[in-house]
Amino acid sequence: MGFHHRHLIDIREYSADDIMLMLQTAERFRSVNERRVKKVPTLKGFTVVNMFFNEPSTRTRSSFEIAEKRLSCDSLNFGGSSTSSVKGESLKDTVETLCAYKIDMIIVRDKHAGVPHQIAETSGVSVIDAGDGKHQHPTQALLDLYSIWQAKGTLDGLKVGVVGDVAHSRVCGSLVPALNTMGCEVTLIAPPTLLPAAPEALGAHHVTSNLDEALGELDVVYMLRIQQERLENSPFPNLREYSMLYGLNEKRDKLLRPDAIVCHPGPINRGVELDDFMADHPQRSVILDQVYAGILVRMAAMYLLLGGSEDGLTA
Amino acid sequence: MGFHHRHLIDIREYSADDIMLMLQTAERFRSVNERRVKKVPTLKGFTVVNMFFNEPSTRTRSSFEIAEKRLSCDSLNFGGSSTSSVKGESLKDTVETLCAYKIDMIIVRDKHAGVPHQIAETSGVSVIDAGDGKHQHPTQALLDLYSIWQAKGTLDGLKVGVVGDVAHSRVCGSLVPALNTMGCEVTLIAPPTLLPAAPEALGAHHVTSNLDEALGELDVVYMLRIQQERLENSPFPNLREYSMLYGLNEKRDKLLRPDAIVCHPGPINRGVELDDFMADHPQRSVILDQVYAGILVRMAAMYLLLGGSEDGLTA
Amino acid sequence: MGFHHRHLIDIREYSADDIMLMLQTAERFRSVNERRVKKVPTLKGFTVVNMFFNEPSTRTRSSFEIAEKRLSCDSLNFGGSSTSSVKGESLKDTVETLCAYKIDMIIVRDKHAGVPHQIAETSGVSVIDAGDGKHQHPTQALLDLYSIWQAKGTLDGLKVGVVGDVAHSRVCGSLVPALNTMGCEVTLIAPPTLLPAAPEALGAHHVTSNLDEALGELDVVYMLRIQQERLENSPFPNLREYSMLYGLNEKRDKLLRPDAIVCHPGPINRGVELDDFMADHPQRSVILDQVYAGILVRMAAMYLLLGGSEDGLTA
Repeated sequence: MGFHHRHLIDIREYSADDIMLMLQTAERFRSVNERRVKKVPTLKGFTVVNMFFNEPSTRTRSSFEIAEKRLSCDSLNFGGSSTSSVKGESLKDTVETLCAYKIDMIIVRDKHAGVPHQIAETSGVSVIDAGDGKHQHPTQALLDLYSIWQAKGTLDGLKVGVVGDVAHSRVCGSLVPALNTMGCEVTLIAPPTLLPAAPEALGAHHVTSNLDEALGELDVVYMLRIQQERLENSPFPNLREYSMLYGLNEKRDKLLRPDAIVCHPGPINRGVELDDFMADHPQRSVILDQVYAGILVRMAAMYLLLGGSEDGLTA
Repeated sequence: MGFHHRHLIDIREYSADDIMLMLQTAERFRSVNERRVKKVPTLKGFTVVNMFFNEPSTRTRSSFEIAEKRLSCDSLNFGGSSTSSVKGESLKDTVETLCAYKIDMIIVRDKHAGVPHQIAETSGVSVIDAGDGKHQHPTQALLDLYSIWQAKGTLDGLKVGVVGDVAHSRVCGSLVPALNTMGCEVTLIAPPTLLPAAPEALGAHHVTSNLDEALGELDVVYMLRIQQERLENSPFPNLREYSMLYGLNEKRDKLLRPDAIVCHPGPINRGVELDDFMADHPQRSVILDQVYAGILVRMAAMYLLLGGSEDGLTA
Repeated sequence: MGFHHRHLIDIREYSADDIMLMLQTAERFRSVNERRVKKVPTLKGFTVVNMFFNEPSTRTRSSFEIAEKRLSCDSLNFGGSSTSSVKGESLKDTVETLCAYKIDMIIVRDKHAGVPHQIAETSGVSVIDAGDGKHQHPTQALLDLYSIWQAKGTLDGLKVGVVGDVAHSRVCGSLVPALNTMGCEVTLIAPPTLLPAAPEALGAHHVTSNLDEALGELDVVYMLRIQQERLENSPFPNLREYSMLYGLNEKRDKLLRPDAIVCHPGPINRGVELDDFMADHPQRSVILDQVYAGILVRMAAMYLLLGGSEDGLTA
């Protein structure tokens, strides 16, 4: 199939063909998830370790857990602050111990950027970065791409606006380069204090602080989650003022193209990034499609990284 | 089969026929649980989410988990205070997210009465209330009915005394109406401060504060668990005094009918509700049968609510 | 097969034949763990409860969990301080409740020596002690024996030195008697304050406080994990001084026989018991083999205790 990756850590190492194969594989797994028995025996007897450290991340973890079950893997949850850190063991020794169990894959979430890479180097097994600090979150980028691809029929040439706390967003670190790879034209939209230092290095084509002016051009408006504490050094002393300038709401609906869609990585701060009108908009909002896509792309990523063959997709 | 329920939240919406079908289905699952391979593939590929919030409930949760495994479901545990409440998401958004994973059922325990109903309205999936505050605990009622039915051969016409903290008991809210539906005659036995305001609305036929007078009439004595802190505003300043008046013990054994049985939802406060003589009485105590029945009725409830067909029972 | 044990609690009740059968069974399971589908249906439909109380023990628990999955058991995790102890139930009632679920085996880790025995007496099911206080840790002893047997080709007549905090080690309580049973000659090597009161009762043949003198005789050097707080009443005020006298390092390598091997139960305090040279020594260190052996002997123990038949080993 031409897919030669062993790890999914840095989406910038994936070509447009690699990414499109992952989206097409996810699409194949949709049929599994929509039948009565939502399960394939594809990875039966494989062992996947979920290492979720330091950070709450119920959604990402739940999504991986379900993807694992639907591929019939055996999963081991290993993490929190309850692990070997108690006995003062190094990350390297912990990973070598896990690998001695004859495992096949590690899914890792850690607040320190670089940990997934370090694990990939230490271990002999496939690694998926499930979000590392403010660096990367590649399966989030894939599920976003999948949802946009499904809604618009293509990715090439789409104009995508990414709105909000671009500077501190883990989502952006993978999403913006991946959109770029797939031929999208990306505009970052944020107050000046929340824009990154080098937007072009991230893969963005345009930068603006004026949401209202930008909206009319966009096929896709991707709203980032904002955190109260990030606003402290910004000109907006509170979420309400932020929301007035950068929230997507019923009033701004008329500024959007008729076929524009709205994405959000969840969980939504209702009334801040989106009002109920936008969050629940039957034509525009693809937010719950993104959640579903999370299952599909994670199944696809595990399947492809573990060398899945054609007949394991739906058998 | 005439079973048309989608949810198991309020046992008062279940007819005598509905309940008897559940008990008979539980009885069919007994054979699964007593063979070497205690498992059927009936719900293979179905996804059940266990949402246990706020409250410790090891027993109920363990029982559901085992029932799920023996039906070959995939389970996702989701709860505690570690979930999306961390990021301030609403219950509605959390439930919609879970449903976007293509799940089939939510088992919910929450200290707020009404949460299971709210989840049933939001989600498109079957909901089982695993205990909500002081309101309902329908699978507990079913396991109690099953145990009594097995011990006495019938439910119709039985005289059942429910003894203890009736006013604050989650168990009573489902058990008493269900006993009533099945044709039992229910007597509530408690100190005046622990009796409910409207016993007849609950489905009780008699009320008394005199245990010793009531015991001789009863086929079944159902002892509720007492909590120290509930006694504070009662005339009994401590558990010892409460136990003298409302505990079932070797001394009171002679007041019971020879064929009377004793139930308790567990965990027992030994020496308070029951002394060792009564708790471990080989003929009277059905307390461990109740624990086993919990597996059977939970298997039956999941099976019937998810539209189980005849041949999934023991295959 | 002549294997008549129901529990694995006290390794001293196991004969050399019993132990050799377990090691040979573990060896049979190696093939399962090294194929693509690392799983057998042998214990499908069996229910195993992991009761891990009071103590952090990520490694032991993970190892059991993986062994259970590879035998296709259903597992229930039950423990921490979050269980029925919340509601003040006795251990006996908790165990009787679990048994009423129709379970097949309890794996128990508790800081109180004797708890596994108590559970075995209460319950009707098989019990494996996964480490109890400073008393026993039989599956650790089996994985140690397996690793030594694989590395040296035999156990009989081997000279084994056990180095470190012998007095407080849970590992020693099972390992030393088991080595003795299998015909090894055991030397305990520790500062006088960390030697046990009755080494010969433990099964040791020699005792010394001089590591350097002892090393040249040994086929196997088993390094125990040291805990800072244990040194407080010893003549070594800190780990650095302890390490100088009782650590195994590149400098001491030349004192070892050319074919001597090094074991450690993990997690290693690098720079204390072992330096990197020794911990990662390609010929001498079998530490990661020990981790892998943990999976194999735990599969073997569960299989044999639950009455496994010949054809369940690799089918």
